[in-house]
Formats: sequence, C-alpha cells, structure tokens
Amino acid sequence: MTTTSFIQAAPAFASGADTPRAFLERCLARMEAREGQVKAFVETAIPAAREAADAATARWAAGRPLSSIDGMPVGVKDVIETKDMPTGMGSPLFTGWRSGRDAASVKALREAGAVILGKTVTTEFAASVPGPTCNPHDLTRTPGGSSSGSAAGVAAGFISAGLGTQVVGSILRPSSFCGVYGFKPSLGGINRLGSHDFMSQSCQGVLAASLGDVWHLVMEVVARAGGDPGWPGVAGPMTLPLAKKPKRLVFLETVGWSKVSADLKAEMERVFVKLSVAGIEIVNRSMAADIATVEEALTRALSVTREVNCWESRWPLNIYAERDASKLSPEMRERQKESEAMTPDQYRAALAQREAIRAAYAKLQSGADACLTLSAVGPAPVGLNSTGDPSFAVPASLLGVPAVSMPLLAEAGLPVGLQVMGFEQCDADLMAIARAVEEIVGQVSA
Amino acid sequence: MTTTSFIQAAPAFASGADTPRAFLERCLARMEAREGQVKAFVETAIPAAREAADAATARWAAGRPLSSIDGMPVGVKDVIETKDMPTGMGSPLFTGWRSGRDAASVKALREAGAVILGKTVTTEFAASVPGPTCNPHDLTRTPGGSSSGSAAGVAAGFISAGLGTQVVGSILRPSSFCGVYGFKPSLGGINRLGSHDFMSQSCQGVLAASLGDVWHLVMEVVARAGGDPGWPGVAGPMTLPLAKKPKRLVFLETVGWSKVSADLKAEMERVFVKLSVAGIEIVNRSMAADIATVEEALTRALSVTREVNCWESRWPLNIYAERDASKLSPEMRERQKESEAMTPDQYRAALAQREAIRAAYAKLQSGADACLTLSAVGPAPVGLNSTGDPSFAVPASLLGVPAVSMPLLAEAGLPVGLQVMGFEQCDADLMAIARAVEEIVGQVSA
Repeated sequence: MTTTSFIQAAPAFASGADTPRAFLERCLARMEAREGQVKAFVETAIPAAREAADAATARWAAGRPLSSIDGMPVGVKDVIETKDMPTGMGSPLFTGWRSGRDAASVKALREAGAVILGKTVTTEFAASVPGPTCNPHDLTRTPGGSSSGSAAGVAAGFISAGLGTQVVGSILRPSSFCGVYGFKPSLGGINRLGSHDFMSQSCQGVLAASLGDVWHLVMEVVARAGGDPGWPGVAGPMTLPLAKKPKRLVFLETVGWSKVSADLKAEMERVFVKLSVAGIEIVNRSMAADIATVEEALTRALSVTREVNCWESRWPLNIYAERDASKLSPEMRERQKESEAMTPDQYRAALAQREAIRAAYAKLQSGADACLTLSAVGPAPVGLNSTGDPSFAVPASLLGVPAVSMPLLAEAGLPVGLQVMGFEQCDADLMAIARAVEEIVGQVSA
Repeated sequence: MTTTSFIQAAPAFASGADTPRAFLERCLARMEAREGQVKAFVETAIPAAREAADAATARWAAGRPLSSIDGMPVGVKDVIETKDMPTGMGSPLFTGWRSGRDAASVKALREAGAVILGKTVTTEFAASVPGPTCNPHDLTRTPGGSSSGSAAGVAAGFISAGLGTQVVGSILRPSSFCGVYGFKPSLGGINRLGSHDFMSQSCQGVLAASLGDVWHLVMEVVARAGGDPGWPGVAGPMTLPLAKKPKRLVFLETVGWSKVSADLKAEMERVFVKLSVAGIEIVNRSMAADIATVEEALTRALSVTREVNCWESRWPLNIYAERDASKLSPEMRERQKESEAMTPDQYRAALAQREAIRAAYAKLQSGADACLTLSAVGPAPVGLNSTGDPSFAVPASLLGVPAVSMPLLAEAGLPVGLQVMGFEQCDADLMAIARAVEEIVGQVSA
C-alpha cells in the first residue's frame, strides 16, 4: 500500500531534488487513479492546492520554508471549518453549509504553509452513521470512522496527513483499519475551536503516513493555535522526539481482547517476544493489582463514554431536531431522545465515574512507561454500514490520555494497529516510546 | 429606579391576579418611554415576545407553567446566538450576521417558556470597546461592560433578567454600575455553546432584578442545557437557597481598594458593622497570613488574565483581521498583534501562574464561608468611551469562583455593588450566604 510521508521527503525539497508541487502532483495522480473508488473526499480545492504548493516550492527553493510542513498535502475532516470549502458534517442538514471561516487548526496549517487539499468524509456529526468512503486495502471493507476520509486518504497516498477528531474511537480505529499512523493527543492537546467537536473527552488529532508526519504537523499547529483554551496543548520538541526505549510496558487487554482472533493474538505474542528480547518488561493484569483494577474499571469505558456523550449532545441535537428531524439518522434521533430523558444529576454521576477510572489509570504511571494494546479487534470488517468495534479505541478517549496507533500488525493480509497509550499531558514521552516500539517491532507489510 | 422581578410576581400569575402578558406589557411601556435614551437593545423581537407571553399566560392560567420562569422577559447579550435575531458581537464585522440557531442557553430558556425580548448591547466581542448603551441612573454615565445592555435593560425595567458573559469584569461591573443583581457562576457553570465566549476563564452568567430571578433562571437553564461539557454545571435546589448566615467572611481589599473614595470606604465600614452586629466575623489581610498571601497573589489577577486572554484570542482575531482588519477597533488590532507575538510557552507560564493563585485562594475555604468585597471602585464614571475599572471584578474571573454583585451600596446617589465571592463549584452555598448578607445589610435605595 502506498503511503506518502512529506517529512521523509523534506530533505529533497531542501536540496532541490524534489519540490512540494511535484509531491502534490504525485498525490493528485494517485487521486486521479483511485479517488473514484475510495471516496475519501467530500470536496477538494485542487487549483488552490496547486497554488499553495507552488508558493511552498518557491519558499523551499529560497531556503525559507514557513515550517517543516510547508507544502504538506493535508485533508481536513468535514466537521472542521474551512473558509474556502463547505463543512457538511456528514449530515444532510449541513450539505453545502459554509461557515466562511477557517477553524483554529486550519488557520494554523495555512500559516505553516500546509496545502489544504480537501475536506475528508466524516460519519454523521462524527458519530456512527458512515459516509461513502471505502477502505483502500479492500474496497468491500469499511475504512472505520468517524475520521473515515482522512484515514483512507492517507492510506491511498492522496495526502500525507489528515485532521481527525476522536470522542469514542474515531482516530485510532480508522488508523488501524486503513494501516496508517493515528495520534489522539491528551485532552485539550490541539485547539478545537471552529470545529463541530465540543464534547468533553473529544480531541482533535492527526492521521498520517508516519510518526514524523504526525508529530511535525501537531507541533506546527500547536505553535500557532495552541491547545484548547485553558489547556497547555501538546508540548515537546518541534521535531519527532528521539526513540526512548521503555523499561516496562503494561499490556492492557481491555474488553476487546476476548473478541480477537487466535491468529491476531499470536501476532501480539510475537510483539511481546520482540519487546522482551529488547529488554522491555511486559506486565499484565495477572501480575499486578493496580493493572487488574484498571482492567476492571475500563470494562465501563464504553458505557460511561456513551452516557457522557449523550448528555453533552443534548444541544445541538435539540436544535437540529427542531430544524428538520427527518434529516437526522434514526440513530441520531434516538440519541436525541435519550439525551432529553437525562438529567444533570445523571450526567454528574457519569462524570464522577469517569474521574474514578482516570484516577485508577493515572496510578499506573509510577510503575510503567506506557501501555500497549491493539487498536482494533481485528482488521476492517466487510461492509460499509458500520465503522466497526470501538472496544480498543475508547479507553484512551475516556481516559483523556494520548495514544498512538501504528500499522505494525496484520491479520489475513490486512492491517491492524498496535496501540501505545501514554499518560495525560505526556504526549512527547509517548511519541518517544512509540518510536522505540516501532523500531523494535518493525513494520509488517500488509 | 424601577426594577422588575418576575419571580416575585409569579404568585400573582398563579392566582390569576396578574399575567405574564400584562407583565410584558409593563416592560414594553417602560421601553417605549426610555429605550430611545438607554439604548439597551441591538434588536428586539416584540411580536414574538407577545406571542410567547400569551402562551405563558395560558399555561399559568391552566396551572401548568413550563417552569418558574415561564413568561419571564429576558434579554440575550449579543454575543449569544439566537435563531430569530442577528448576533452582531458589537462588531461591524458581524452586523446583521445570523447563525440561524439558538445557543444552548437560549434554547433552554425557550424550553422553559422564557420570553426572549431582544439582543442586548455588548462591547466589541465582549471586550473593551463600548456600544451606545447609557446608564439608566444617569445617561451621561457608562452602564459598564461588556454586558452593557443586559445591565441597563434590567435597571430600566425592560427585562427581568439578561444573559451576560464575563472573562474580566463583564457581569459584576455593569451590575454594580446599573444597580442590578449580577451572578458570575463557577467555571463551566452554564453551557456556553453557541456563544462567542470561548476563553478558559470566561463564564456565561445572569444580570437580574433580584437574587431570585438570577437563581431561578440559572437553574432552569442548567436543568435543560447543563454546564459546559465536562463540568458539573451549577448545582443546587431549583428555588433560591434559604439564607444561611456565615460564621466568618474574608474582606478582600484587592488592588481596587486604593482607588475607592473615603465616602465609599465609610459605607463599607457600615456594612462591616452591620454584619458584625449580626454575629458574623470579618477577617482581613492583617489578621491571617493565608489572606495576606491571597491579597498578594491577586495583585497579578489583571495582568495574568490579560496574558491568558491574549493567547486565547489569537484565533479568531487572526481570521477577523484577515477578513477585514479595518473593521476591528484599534484596541482589537493591538491585541491581535500582541497575540501573534506570544508563544505557547508564555501561555503555559501564565496558566501556571493562574493555577498558583487559584490554589492560594482555595485554601481560604477551610477558614471562611465566603469573601466580601466591592464590585467596582465607585459608581459608574461619566462618559461612554470606557466601561470602567475592572479591579474588583477580575479576581472572581481569574479564580473561576462564583460571585454575586448586589446593589446594596451607594455613593453620591449612584449605585455600587457589594460583592460576595464563593468557592469553586459551591454556587448554591454562595447564594445562601449572599441572601443572608442582603437581609442583614439591607437595600440602600439609590
């Protein structure tokens, strides 16, 4: 599968052996060949992208790129506003809707010279009802969601990176299914203003062709837009942190493990062997009470997440239903009804449960460097009607901790992500560990 | 000065001696007489208001009001979106702009039966450049800001309550200047979604004709819209908490005290005497080291607030400047430039300072029930070019704690607010104490 790292190509831009415009043209050629089948984009801005790539080319030639991502072709999930394209939210209520403004992260991308190639398909309001996107590895399979188009677009080599959002499993799951790198930062890590992405455990994040593309994009955005108001935002070096071999990793089974095939479990065992051989201790629920406590607490991750999200989407679902309920999916209408039936006290109880689970998880930090798990229960399932099981993706959402999915595993020739989960506001540490894990485990070609 | 408590009138709606429609007509008559001079509203929706008041009247007659505020005439600060009126943000960039949707709190107000009478004047983007509103107590004086129209509208008896927002002094200061009750809740207390009100220490709050009007409105909104996502929201009984006499109150001078006239200081001394006679101990910086520490820390309240707000307004000021910088005030253009010069690390340092000040303040809770101070350095100053000194209002903003301003003081025949500040997420306790303070200090007719 073709992927396209802009950061790996950057030395050639500096030397003049390659240019951002030529890089873009290669992306466009792949789009020309496959976008008709993959359907990653809702809307593209190709002439503007060529113009932006030419400007980046001139800056690299002059030795003065605006940033390390000057000229990077990027897709923007269609819940994040762009001044030059509509923001459709994956909903007929918003088809063709133009806010006329760039979201904070999009404005930052433009300031950094990134080439906004188009808006990528999202599920309805970044929830569960899918759009038309297909998985580039097998067009009969879901790309996952809700950041479906960003995942598929990176996997198909149309873009080096796509902005995504995650409140349940919307970055890690499609990254896993499409065989790309996905990063969900700590709570508040990337400024979400100007995005339909307002829930308390929701994050803006990135799906990209490599860890380097992920990290450079994130840092260039945060340097210009910060994190959410009141949060420190992702902090660390402007370039990808050096690999740092962890001493001890916690293997978290979560409720997902019981759904994993014997083949994939065997694949995971091989990962543990490689890590052990490299001198990294792997510990699990049978070896420490605090891990068992976290495993037990995380059995409620999905149910607590759903309660929290339900109350938090009372508005705007009530005004959408008032506007035209027939344009909401049955799933969304059902959630709207459930939200109307909730009380502030029920919501407060759900928040308290979430706090307790977070507190249990935070205690792991004293004895381990990070946690390791899968990103999905298996490869992308056949069919486009569901974006797949979120069991492995929801813990990081609920916990508010940073997590990386890396395309290091495979089952039946299809990619599966290996997930490294870190601790809150320690995003750079997580990246350094993920990089070490990637080096040790090595890439399994899908 | 006429004020109009809807909650005090409610028993007459229940008995049939009065109706919400008649109540509204009395508001409209006062508007007819004085709105031309006061200029509280940017836009009104009088026919829709009459219709809503008639519907409320029918529900009260049938013994089935939707809520305790069913029929209450309310103004909505013009940074908060309404589906039936433009949201102008006090900026020529947004004149006539229609979002086509109700903000979360506005939707909740409508669900509770409140009568949305109009959009009230705000300073430019709820910051410092004033609109045309005059102080109803003296038309040559500022009403304060940024919730200028909500304060003046309540003071002039056009509305029982107005929605406001505060990030520096935008609720407490105009409440003080206009002689109305103002409530800035704890962080996250009232859902801000659908409002141009996204900064980390910003809050949505209420200016109203009585503590009862404040509290009932807040609780009816929070029951339907909650607090900000991730926050518990204002919690407590649906009716105004019973008065609870505090044992000990901390008098906080803050940097404002040095700017207060001898007359107003004497007025404050009389307040202390009344409270002491009632058996309440008043303690200050000279009597306890932890209070002195807080006073010292709060000398930085305004400068830290400005740093935090500056970075947090980088976006959207950058996209506004890009759209048409000539439509930003010189003050806003200056802030935009300052925000561009800031780095994430400078912002993180400001956040850390804020955290330290909050931690120092939180320690007071073990030894006192609440804090007492003024809401402004004096009565509203003459002139409409400035909204006045925010010294006494900014501490509660920075601290994220709930605060109430009550029109219990006067200087030279003009109102000055007495402020009671509580502890974070203890809004109902604060209300109970404020009510006791009000009963003891008594209302000074302005």
